[in-house]
Amino acid sequence: MSDSRSSRPYLESPRHPLVKELRRLLTKPAERRARRQWVVEGPRLIEDALRAGLVVRHLLVARRLAEAQGGGDVTAALIAEVERQGGRVSLCSDRIVSLLADTAHPQGVIALVEGELPALPPPDRLRPPILMLDGVQDPGNVGTILRSAAAAGVGAVVLDAGCADLSHPKVIRASAGAVFRVPAARLTEPGALPTLARQLRGRGWQVLGLEAHGGVPYHTAALDGPIALVAGSEARGIAPELAAECSGMLTIPLAGGVESLNVAAAVAVVLFEAARQRAGRG
Amino acid sequence: MSDSRSSRPYLESPRHPLVKELRRLLTKPAERRARRQWVVEGPRLIEDALRAGLVVRHLLVARRLAEAQGGGDVTAALIAEVERQGGRVSLCSDRIVSLLADTAHPQGVIALVEGELPALPPPDRLRPPILMLDGVQDPGNVGTILRSAAAAGVGAVVLDAGCADLSHPKVIRASAGAVFRVPAARLTEPGALPTLARQLRGRGWQVLGLEAHGGVPYHTAALDGPIALVAGSEARGIAPELAAECSGMLTIPLAGGVESLNVAAAVAVVLFEAARQRAGRG
Repeated sequence: MSDSRSSRPYLESPRHPLVKELRRLLTKPAERRARRQWVVEGPRLIEDALRAGLVVRHLLVARRLAEAQGGGDVTAALIAEVERQGGRVSLCSDRIVSLLADTAHPQGVIALVEGELPALPPPDRLRPPILMLDGVQDPGNVGTILRSAAAAGVGAVVLDAGCADLSHPKVIRASAGAVFRVPAARLTEPGALPTLARQLRGRGWQVLGLEAHGGVPYHTAALDGPIALVAGSEARGIAPELAAECSGMLTIPLAGGVESLNVAAAVAVVLFEAARQRAGRG
Repeated sequence: MSDSRSSRPYLESPRHPLVKELRRLLTKPAERRARRQWVVEGPRLIEDALRAGLVVRHLLVARRLAEAQGGGDVTAALIAEVERQGGRVSLCSDRIVSLLADTAHPQGVIALVEGELPALPPPDRLRPPILMLDGVQDPGNVGTILRSAAAAGVGAVVLDAGCADLSHPKVIRASAGAVFRVPAARLTEPGALPTLARQLRGRGWQVLGLEAHGGVPYHTAALDGPIALVAGSEARGIAPELAAECSGMLTIPLAGGVESLNVAAAVAVVLFEAARQRAGRG
């Protein structure tokens, strides 16, 4: 083990081609999509990616971590798995880790991952409930919502072009790996979400918008059938073209003069009410 | 108006005493607490602070904004209100705004605010439900939780020393002003939360811990009586000393092999189930 470890390349220059390649992927969503390549940070998320069938092309490990006891066990297992798959492993300096990580306390392992995320089924194969996000820009919110959606048994998440990209490092991290498990797609053609909403209604689905005011109290609505929940941005709500395709609007009654909830909190509340109703029925 | 405006000081040096004072407050929680002074960014949050009875000692306005039409209306109203209260107003450069704001797109208005946040009532005056947070470090999560708590009608939020400080700029922003409305306190003495849990149980309250696994499904528990909900950190859960003082544990059943929810999402789900039960009973 120590022999193969000592033979691994050691990276310490920010101008190393691999470091430059990773930085390009971190900052260019179009490049991530075109190459189907992602940057994933931390052993837990990298393991999630592997379990989801993605391939680790290159694993960068802080030398300090690779040489440490304890924390090294997880790292050693990950290194072995990546090399078994034919991926390359390099050691690097803490400085390189900080350069590539977007967390304040990076965990010292960064992977260049390749492959497809779970694909969105065609409309006739969608399993309810599904979730549609319109203009949810904040990547932390998008990731948190994916995590809640996976946990609430959502069949698919559909995002519009105004949402954070699914391959954004903060989306991946906030999703706690759910981005590798929930079928999801960001549809960038104009009108994609209104079109999908219309198709679903045509198939007998309820398409239910979530609004801060004026809708039906969410817990009085039947959420255990074929439903699509639609959530918009906190600042602007659901776009009029999409709201026009909704079959109804839901509202979470709020106390104390509070105007609205964080969108990820609001979506979690309604998705778990739907899960509660389904479990009660089942 | 233009006369008084042109007579306002214009700040452009990072070494101006006011800028240095604001930066000190931004980075030193102990100083914020000792001086009961806060830095609040954005017209909406500053208005929330004013409505909650806090005083704006100094308002810094980007000159570009003060001179603009449109956006200037909100700013002009805020400037007038601050000056009516006896607060000082200065104009500043965009560079100074960026230096003091922790958002990527600052709104150009920053206030030095002074006063007390809503105080925690004594244990015999606490109105259920209450929420206890143990080791929730991320200020975005703490702020989002305060926002949900206010909206779900929570009587008070009690945090331990391991939680983000209530006066952290990210807590204030993520709370969307709820930090100025919900009685809340961060109790820093060791054992403060277990002691409070014991006191509440002695008064007939249910103290219910929220755990990722092994508790009673949250929607099957009675949450409409005198209850305190306890949430811990995502990484470590509820501290053993505090868990030992809980009368029971709740769990949100999760689908799809998901291990846990974001703590702010989990807390929102349970708080709104409690609100739903209360509304149904009332």
